[in-house]
Amino acid sequence: MRIAVLGTGSVGQSISAKLRALGHDVHIGSRTAGDGKHTYADAAAFAELLFNCTSGGGSLAALQAAGENALGDKVLIDVANPLDFSKGFPPSLLVCNTDSLAETLQRAFPKVRVVKALNTINNGLMVDPGKLAGGEHDLPLCGNDAAAKETVKSLLATFGWKHFVDVGDLTGARAMEMYLPLWVRLYGTLKTADFNFKLMR
Amino acid sequence: MRIAVLGTGSVGQSISAKLRALGHDVHIGSRTAGDGKHTYADAAAFAELLFNCTSGGGSLAALQAAGENALGDKVLIDVANPLDFSKGFPPSLLVCNTDSLAETLQRAFPKVRVVKALNTINNGLMVDPGKLAGGEHDLPLCGNDAAAKETVKSLLATFGWKHFVDVGDLTGARAMEMYLPLWVRLYGTLKTADFNFKLMR
Repeated sequence: MRIAVLGTGSVGQSISAKLRALGHDVHIGSRTAGDGKHTYADAAAFAELLFNCTSGGGSLAALQAAGENALGDKVLIDVANPLDFSKGFPPSLLVCNTDSLAETLQRAFPKVRVVKALNTINNGLMVDPGKLAGGEHDLPLCGNDAAAKETVKSLLATFGWKHFVDVGDLTGARAMEMYLPLWVRLYGTLKTADFNFKLMR
Repeated sequence: MRIAVLGTGSVGQSISAKLRALGHDVHIGSRTAGDGKHTYADAAAFAELLFNCTSGGGSLAALQAAGENALGDKVLIDVANPLDFSKGFPPSLLVCNTDSLAETLQRAFPKVRVVKALNTINNGLMVDPGKLAGGEHDLPLCGNDAAAKETVKSLLATFGWKHFVDVGDLTGARAMEMYLPLWVRLYGTLKTADFNFKLMR
């Protein structure tokens, strides 16, 4: 599959490495091309499916740089969190409660099929869920397009994900992004980023 | 132990019934006395320890009615969530991100030893955690007073709680309250309120 990974940080690096290991043709999108990277616009135009791994505060600008024509009605997996580190650690959120980053991106590009996923875990675990409890833990996701969610589940299953929890339409991204403060607190208590929740019911 | 349960809704009813079954002397606090209920002020004056089971939007007024003298430096277990149902379902939060209900109460009554706990689960599970996965799931809590957190853990252990996750000082209540939107979404997906998370690490 031709996939664009927007963002060159640790999350983008982990995901692009995993996708290449799985045999996909990956273009990494950045503000400027070079060093094996493409521009946001070139990466988006190339791709059949995109991962948004930019920082939350820069995600809208990254998609605007990619452009509406290049994005089209492609599936965009929004991995980003709208974290605000301007007042130090722990971060607060740039948007929450009655809105979310994923909805902000969806409003700006109504045709793109945004699926929120993977934002609730650390990048190492995103691409190797089996290293924790044999993969017996849960990945929430949400989005407005049912077919897009199935595409995402199929792709992430090849990463090793076994258990998805579909929390509904894209307004569920508020809930998924508002989990981040608890993730940050749990990280402080557990002293490891390699954790996730298993839903007991 | 002499315990006040502030609030007469389903959460207050579940907790007061459990405490009485465990042999505690419980006064239920309400806006008005009668029908086996006491005023907030009388219940608070009677108690050695308090549960805040009022609705989040009414919690500050309930504690103000209880009064600073009656509250003293007692341990207050804040079970409430600042849910705003004014725009329907799902609810948003009345306060979040850079503040929380628990911190609001603590600021108003600096001597009270507020511990946030039990707000992340349904009332049936609060008082009978063993009915789910043999109690193998996690209860986050936080607060500024270490001794108060130990008191709360000891009391909740008698409810059947085995696994506590101390997420630090009371600013952790932001994270614990901001988990509620995800709880609400998971409730919609799982079609049961009897669920909780087990932390896999």
